[in-house]
Formats: sequence, structure tokens, C-alpha cells
Amino acid sequence: MRTRAAVAFEAGRPLEVTEVNLEGPKAGEVLVEIKATGLCHTDEFTRSGADPEGAFPAILGHEGAGVVLEVGPGVTSLEPGDHVIPLYTPECRECEYCLNPKTNLCQSIRSTQGQGLMPDGTSRFSTLDGKPILHYMGCSTFANHTVLPEIALAKVRKDAPFDKICYIGCGVTTGIGAVINTAKVEIGSRCVVFGLGGIGLNVIQGCRLAGANQIIGVDLNNDRKAWGERFGMTDFVNPSEIEGDLVGHLVELTGGGADYSFECIGNVNVMRAALECAHKGWGESIIIGVAPAGAEISTRPFQLVTGRTWKGTAFGGARGRTDVPKIVDWYMQGKIEIDPMITHTLSLDEINKGFDLMHEGASIRAVVVY
Amino acid sequence: MRTRAAVAFEAGRPLEVTEVNLEGPKAGEVLVEIKATGLCHTDEFTRSGADPEGAFPAILGHEGAGVVLEVGPGVTSLEPGDHVIPLYTPECRECEYCLNPKTNLCQSIRSTQGQGLMPDGTSRFSTLDGKPILHYMGCSTFANHTVLPEIALAKVRKDAPFDKICYIGCGVTTGIGAVINTAKVEIGSRCVVFGLGGIGLNVIQGCRLAGANQIIGVDLNNDRKAWGERFGMTDFVNPSEIEGDLVGHLVELTGGGADYSFECIGNVNVMRAALECAHKGWGESIIIGVAPAGAEISTRPFQLVTGRTWKGTAFGGARGRTDVPKIVDWYMQGKIEIDPMITHTLSLDEINKGFDLMHEGASIRAVVVY
Ligand SMILES: [Zn+2]
Ligand SMILES: [Zn+2]
Ligand SMILES: [Zn+2]
Ligand SMILES: [Zn+2]
Repeated sequence: MRTRAAVAFEAGRPLEVTEVNLEGPKAGEVLVEIKATGLCHTDEFTRSGADPEGAFPAILGHEGAGVVLEVGPGVTSLEPGDHVIPLYTPECRECEYCLNPKTNLCQSIRSTQGQGLMPDGTSRFSTLDGKPILHYMGCSTFANHTVLPEIALAKVRKDAPFDKICYIGCGVTTGIGAVINTAKVEIGSRCVVFGLGGIGLNVIQGCRLAGANQIIGVDLNNDRKAWGERFGMTDFVNPSEIEGDLVGHLVELTGGGADYSFECIGNVNVMRAALECAHKGWGESIIIGVAPAGAEISTRPFQLVTGRTWKGTAFGGARGRTDVPKIVDWYMQGKIEIDPMITHTLSLDEINKGFDLMHEGASIRAVVVY
Repeated sequence: MRTRAAVAFEAGRPLEVTEVNLEGPKAGEVLVEIKATGLCHTDEFTRSGADPEGAFPAILGHEGAGVVLEVGPGVTSLEPGDHVIPLYTPECRECEYCLNPKTNLCQSIRSTQGQGLMPDGTSRFSTLDGKPILHYMGCSTFANHTVLPEIALAKVRKDAPFDKICYIGCGVTTGIGAVINTAKVEIGSRCVVFGLGGIGLNVIQGCRLAGANQIIGVDLNNDRKAWGERFGMTDFVNPSEIEGDLVGHLVELTGGGADYSFECIGNVNVMRAALECAHKGWGESIIIGVAPAGAEISTRPFQLVTGRTWKGTAFGGARGRTDVPKIVDWYMQGKIEIDPMITHTLSLDEINKGFDLMHEGASIRAVVVY
């Protein structure tokens, strides 16, 4: 079949909206009509050429929602008409990782997914003159239609709006999951969140959901204060406006240090500050942001020996097929908010404008609706 | 009263065995006759002058066992004749830290202890001509008699031999506790232990006690292979004898990475290797060794984002008054071994020879018996 897609033909160039060929689903695969997709920093990381593992041409996008149109042979858990959210972290429920309750990093299709291919080692996308186009993070939600493995689709309720729940495909789950699955924030905790963008605000509402007593947001942009407060932030710190040491300031503000801190930027210096503002004896710091290639974190080992723990999280520690439908329910029940974070809605033709908004800091989330 | 002690008058000089004055216990304090004391690397770290916080003159030693001779006003949990192990990490059972189940780092007397003083801000030791001598780590077990706060003494059974259980005052508890309290190693785990000295061997027997399937010891000294095997090590790796990358070798040997790794040396490069040989998705690395002043650990944040956890531990995460008596019981029941690790027994006059043995790598533990 043919479908419309925003194709990244080369690193650093704007996406090109064009018709492409899409082969139907093979065994274990599913054809999905994407109804909406968010634009995430990770898409831009690859588009811009900063991602050392980026490969082109490719159809980016990994934060989508849509409807199943057709299933390949052997697919049993989905049928046409089902509403789904694509999962860049699949959940096969059979590999060593899926069977270990300590991790969500299903490895069953990792190597082909990393190469931009379906599990059989080929691509379903091609240009109209027959040249292959790579998949991206196993999702490629910047195409109106895409093919995914069955294990990379979360089936969700049909009354949930696509243009909102697409955000659960990455940002919402990453932020809320980091709080609930990775940190396991307890009622009464004191939390510090570094970076109040599309991930950090979801960490904030995750902390609120978990019953944290104090939720401190840290951002250089004062416009983000109102945003943070809207989702439960209790204190705002602009590092450029405090005198002296940021870590010392945060330790004082929390009365001894954060029970949990979250780095949502991808800056290794901020990661260090996040660890060091954690409370002696029990504070945990969670790295969510993706650092530039080659960048390293460092600290004195004394920070760990005196009881701080340094962790990271990917996709919020969520097992997609199991956890994503629950987060959709929470949204529909009003336990979490998404609507106000979707600041811009675009057509596919306007997709490059979405990246401009991201760079300007003007959007929390821009969503393309097909 | 007067007692004999090995005094560190200056950084970098041998200890001097001499008579000193010792004041009796004040309120909340206890006079203890030390019967035996181990020599730990931390004593040498301070004696040598490497410890930036070292203060002199002081009576070092923090790994002892003895008998209560006299209690000061208000002491209720101990009486003369009780057998005790001094605790450099006290357990007041009242401070914010003691009341938080996530930590063992009681802070109730931390600032005075750090200055070499009793909780009232003074020292009980002085030279015969009246100059004050500092306490050390709140213990000063290199004196035949010493005074400690009640909260810094674990009461233990009377049938346990002093010249063995003194080692529980630091090395045994640090090693076994790191496994049980900090890592919480599960049955069937694969563990890697870096550094097979007085701490590492106890980590090994801790892993055996916890039911680990694979216990890999890593040391540059091939003589330590037999030592490791004696306490449960299943594989030995000498980094100088493997081809290529140590981390890659350990990942292969463990079939994917360690569930738990332990750094027992205090070398920041080894700390990095210990983290990076931990299993993707769930591996945890525990720093036990004390690094040189100013040294920093580093790694790519990707190591954490893909599911590894970096932790540290002090005194094995043990709450001394509660946990040390249990470890003494385990020793008396034969669950853990101590006797073979005590390779040298010395008199107080021979104490400097103990540090020589440590430098030569000839001893696992040298113990001074009074
Ligand atoms: Zn994303
Ligand atoms: Zn799996
Ligand atoms: Zn010690
Ligand atoms: Zn305490």
C-alpha cells in the first residue's frame, strides 16, 4: 500500500512529507493506522544528526496512537479495530529480561530494532522508486500507516482520544514510570526534578500521584514555574537566580536532601548535582535524560558510600503491554493530566514547525494529528 | 587510671607504645577493657597521613572486643562484666537516621566523633604530662582500656573468643553486611568481588551464605585464589593474566554480567569496572573500598539508563547493636568462618609489625591480643 510519511532522508535536514510504499504485515506483525503522534526530543536528537547511531533514510516518530487495520499470521492478541499505542520498548513476556521482575528492557527484537529493521531483518517501508527506508525505534509514527511486531503494541481502551494518549507512548510513561516503577516514591517523600519539559512535568505529576510532600522543580526558564505548579510542584528553583551552590541550596530547601531526585535534561553536570542533592543515607537519584555521545557522569565515591544510590530508567521502567493500558485508564479517570501539556496540534505537513517550537522552548508537546 | 596504648603522635610515624592517662566514663559512657583488636586498612590510612581528616596525636584502632569494667551515670543497657564490640557506627535508635529503615548511618554523635572527641566535646585520653590525645572513630581499640558511649557498644555472648570476634567490629560485618543488607543478594545470584583482602573474603563468604550460584574473585595476587576458594569463591580472575578487556571477560564469565558486584579495594578505576560488569537491566554494584582523597568515579550515564544501579555501603549497612550480636552468633554456629582469616596474632608491642605485614600483603588480618 501507499501512505504519507515525513521522511528523514539525511541527518540535519528537515523532514520531507511524501508518499511512501508500505508492505503489509508478515508473521507476528500488525498494520496500524497512526491517528496522532507526539514529537519527542529523541526524534530531534536523531534528525539533527547528534545521535551517533542514527541511520538514514528513516521514518522517525515513536510516540503514537492508532488503530489496527490488519494482522499478520500468528498474531493472537490483537485484531482489526483495536486501538493501540506503539512501544519502542516491546514486551515479549518470554525473554530472560521480560521474565526478570527487576527490568523492563525486553531484548527479544533489540538488535534488528536498533538497525531500523523488522525482526526478520528487512524494512516494510520504501520510496516510490523502491529504495528501502528504515524504521525508527521500532515505531515510525511519522507515517500515517506503519507495521509493528505484535509484542510492540499496547492495546488500549477505545474511548480514549488519540491526540492525547499518543503522549503516553513516550513522555508520560517515561516521567510517571520513573517515579512509580524505578524510584518507587513513597507517600511523604521530598523530590527534586531537574528540567521542566515534557518529561519533567510528567515526573512532577507522578510525584503528586505518589503522594510526595515536597516537589521541587529546577529549570533555567522562569516560564516553567507556572507549568510546574499546574502539575503539583511545590517549590521552584532557577539555578541562575540563587546565590552560591545549587546543591547546598537544594539540600537546605529539602531539610537535608532529596529522598528522590530526577534528571530530565541529559546534562551530565546536572546529573551530578541531582545525585549530590540526594539525602545522605537513603537518597536516590534517577537519570532519565539522554546525554550527548561520549559524555560521562562523575562524583566522589564518598557520595555513594554515605548512602546515596545512582540509577537510571528507560521508558520509565514500564512494561508496555501491561502498564501502558493502565496509564491510559488513569488519564481517562482524571488521575493524571495530559491535555494542558499538548500545547500545539499540527498537521503532518507542518511537522517541521514542531521541531522549531521545541527549539524555541515554546511547546511542552506538539502533536501531529493525521 | 593509667593504661597502655599504641599512640599515633604524628602522621607517617610508627605508633608508640606507652602509658597514657584515661579518665573514667561520664554520663552515658562506658569503660571497656579491650582484649583484642584487629588492624584494618583504615587505621593505616590515617596513621600514614593519607587521610585528609586525620588528626594527631590519637589512639587509633576500631576493630576490637572486650569487657565492660564500669558504666557512667544513666547507662542502662550494659553492666560490668558484659562482653562488647565497639561500634564506629553507633546505633542510638532515636535519631532521624536510626528511625529510617533505609540507613544504618546513625548521626547522633557524628560531629564530635569526627573530631576525635567524646559526645561532650572532650577527650578521655591524655599523655602522662597531661596533653590531650584524641579518640579515633569513637573506638581507640589500640588502647588496653578505652571509654565509649553506650550507643557505640554491641553486647555479645560471653562464650565467643575475643581474639576472633574483634574482627566483627569492622571487616567481617562490612563484607557480610554489604552482601546481606546493602545488596540483598538472592539465592542463585552471580557475584563478582574485586579485591580479596580482609573485606573481600568476607564478601565472598557473605555471598556463599546468601546462596549465590557463582562467586568470582578478582585480584592481582594469585596467592589469593586459594584464599577465595576456602570461603566459597567459584572462579578466580587475575586481571594481569587475561587478554583483552576485563569487563568483557567478566560479562562473558557470568553469562551476561554480574547480578551483584563489590569493590573492596578503594580504586576508582576498579569501581568503574565493577559497575560496568554488572548485568544490563538489573545488575547492582556496591562500593565498599575507600578511595584516595579527591578521587572521582565516572562512567557513561548509559550504563545506568540501561538498568545498572550504583551504590555504596559503610559498615555493611549494619546497625551495630542489633546486627553485630547476630553475626557473633553466626560465627559461633559455624555459619561463617573467621579463624583462618586471622593470620597473625601479635602483642601490643609488636603492633607496627602488623602494618608491615599489611603492606607486604602477607596477612589477611593481624590481631593484637592484650
Ligand atoms: Zn521519546
Ligand atoms: Zn522480552
Ligand atoms: Zn576497618
Ligand atoms: Zn541514631
